[in-house]
Amino acid sequence: MMPPAIEELLRPELKKLVPYEPYRREGMIMLDANENPYPLPDGLYEEICREAAARQLTRYPDPTAEELRREIAAYAGVEPEQVVVGNGSDELIQLLLLTFGGPGTFSLIPYPTFSMYAVHTTITGGRVIAVPCREDFSLPLPELAEKISSPEVHITFLASPNNPTGAVFGEEELRFLLAKARGLVVVDEAYFEFYGRSFVPLIKEYPNLVILRTFSKAFALAGFRVGYLIAAGEVTAQLFRTKQPYNLNTFSQTAALVALKRRDLYRPLLQEIVAGREELYRALFLMPGIKPFPSWANYILFRTEKKPAPVVHRELKERGILIRNLHGAPGLDNCLRVTVGQREEREKFLLALQEVLG
Amino acid sequence: MMPPAIEELLRPELKKLVPYEPYRREGMIMLDANENPYPLPDGLYEEICREAAARQLTRYPDPTAEELRREIAAYAGVEPEQVVVGNGSDELIQLLLLTFGGPGTFSLIPYPTFSMYAVHTTITGGRVIAVPCREDFSLPLPELAEKISSPEVHITFLASPNNPTGAVFGEEELRFLLAKARGLVVVDEAYFEFYGRSFVPLIKEYPNLVILRTFSKAFALAGFRVGYLIAAGEVTAQLFRTKQPYNLNTFSQTAALVALKRRDLYRPLLQEIVAGREELYRALFLMPGIKPFPSWANYILFRTEKKPAPVVHRELKERGILIRNLHGAPGLDNCLRVTVGQREEREKFLLALQEVLG
Repeated sequence: MMPPAIEELLRPELKKLVPYEPYRREGMIMLDANENPYPLPDGLYEEICREAAARQLTRYPDPTAEELRREIAAYAGVEPEQVVVGNGSDELIQLLLLTFGGPGTFSLIPYPTFSMYAVHTTITGGRVIAVPCREDFSLPLPELAEKISSPEVHITFLASPNNPTGAVFGEEELRFLLAKARGLVVVDEAYFEFYGRSFVPLIKEYPNLVILRTFSKAFALAGFRVGYLIAAGEVTAQLFRTKQPYNLNTFSQTAALVALKRRDLYRPLLQEIVAGREELYRALFLMPGIKPFPSWANYILFRTEKKPAPVVHRELKERGILIRNLHGAPGLDNCLRVTVGQREEREKFLLALQEVLG
Repeated sequence: MMPPAIEELLRPELKKLVPYEPYRREGMIMLDANENPYPLPDGLYEEICREAAARQLTRYPDPTAEELRREIAAYAGVEPEQVVVGNGSDELIQLLLLTFGGPGTFSLIPYPTFSMYAVHTTITGGRVIAVPCREDFSLPLPELAEKISSPEVHITFLASPNNPTGAVFGEEELRFLLAKARGLVVVDEAYFEFYGRSFVPLIKEYPNLVILRTFSKAFALAGFRVGYLIAAGEVTAQLFRTKQPYNLNTFSQTAALVALKRRDLYRPLLQEIVAGREELYRALFLMPGIKPFPSWANYILFRTEKKPAPVVHRELKERGILIRNLHGAPGLDNCLRVTVGQREEREKFLLALQEVLG
């Protein structure tokens, strides 16, 4: 018999998925991925290595990540059983969809937003209802309200602050949607620490509210991949059925635990990033041909009004500065996103941008 | 509107999944999870920590894990583009199923074997065709051949050495199945290093053959969670579409890389484990009321013939020794699995077992 054609075995709905295109970052000023631009606080890495060494690294990790979940619960003001940790938020987005989504269900997603909500909906066999945000990137409440009450919408993905726009929404807006939702409402708070307001307290009233968080941004642990979610015990109990038992390795569990215990060390970095964001916003606002959008996170979205964004992006790259080109994504014509870097990085970026704009 | 009932949102096929039940291991002799019982070779952990520190841990990991994949490719004698790394083999099993399985497809699984093949088939919406092995745990070739030629069987999961039986199969048997298969044939070689024979060279002839491997066993990196698969470029190209971009954290990438570069340091440990397995087999073989099965891995399956296995399991646990109770799984009546521990652990286990059997 002929060997089978691999492409014929592929799930048909995946054929249009574009594989992730890696690009070189070394030696560049990296303002493209919303990471914390500062090194880890002094001594923290050594403490992580020491702590991890005491944890039997040749053995499988604690499948319940008990110690870390207890610390996160204390940090967020919830019970440990309301916390699920994962190999980055990406894994948790996929886990939510594997558990509550899938064929015959829809994910409701206002856009522009983080692309992984739609990607993982497709990968797990569900379909996406995409609703455009207002021009100022605020939520399209009437349109969302209409869709969210459909029993086929099993998950709605919101983000506050939203990536890449930087926009937030308020409690009134969320309550309005939660009151109508027939499925889960996920609020991605990946950038919570740069903003300060959380919807975690609403979980008590709404068992269908799920909050996503990460250690990759404020805690500067992107290289360790630790995300978590907070939800009612009824939700997390179902996720514990489907979660891979050893989804978070021992070393990363330890890194997040140590970072959280030493969170005071991060405070000056966070203050510096938030102040830097405001400075950067003002500078962009005053620059002819640039329209920045207000942001509550560690990045700023801006539109280029005189020169096409892909050209600006390329010319910055030629000058050693990487930012994110969003032109081509729906609703983001001529938009670029820049992460708030260290002071020197911000200055170099602004100088280069001025040069590029001529 | 009433808040939705969470259980009604759950995918119906998941309702029968039993969540993983964690249990206490601290302070016990841990012969239950087929880990390498030895500490990491001297100086290796320090080298991993040093190497990782040079790799920008505050930034997202290399999504292509280029350096690690190059080293694995050299180790396995394939090209780097034939290698996909993951957050343990569990992630790769799920990734294979998300990409090539799903609703309307079947996974063909001879049993007893590693439970995750069936669990992840269910989670990703496919269905399982389970075929019992022969009494001696060899593959039921005629039954498999009949099913494997169905176009709906998208993935067949085999393992050599097989967990928990320790059994292996030969090239003739695999070729016989590959010649008839219409889908992928996955051979899990998690325990390859304790056995020494691999089917990787057959990938050249069979583009539908996929080999799974791990750093959790011979390389003693269970706490870091690194698995990999080797397949034809046509297969890996599809997996790169669906893989989470940052699925393997920087620290674990580095740990596996360093371990592989220093693999000579592991050689005495592996020799000791293989010699220990043979000693353990002989001791069990000579013990009245115990029937061990030959094993090519770092564990031995045995049947208790006079006392029920769950009782033996419990009484060993009361003596501080954890092994795996498999009684209750189909085909494994009164079966227990013991990992080959260090010499002292093996001696304590054998003494305790003799005591328990009276």
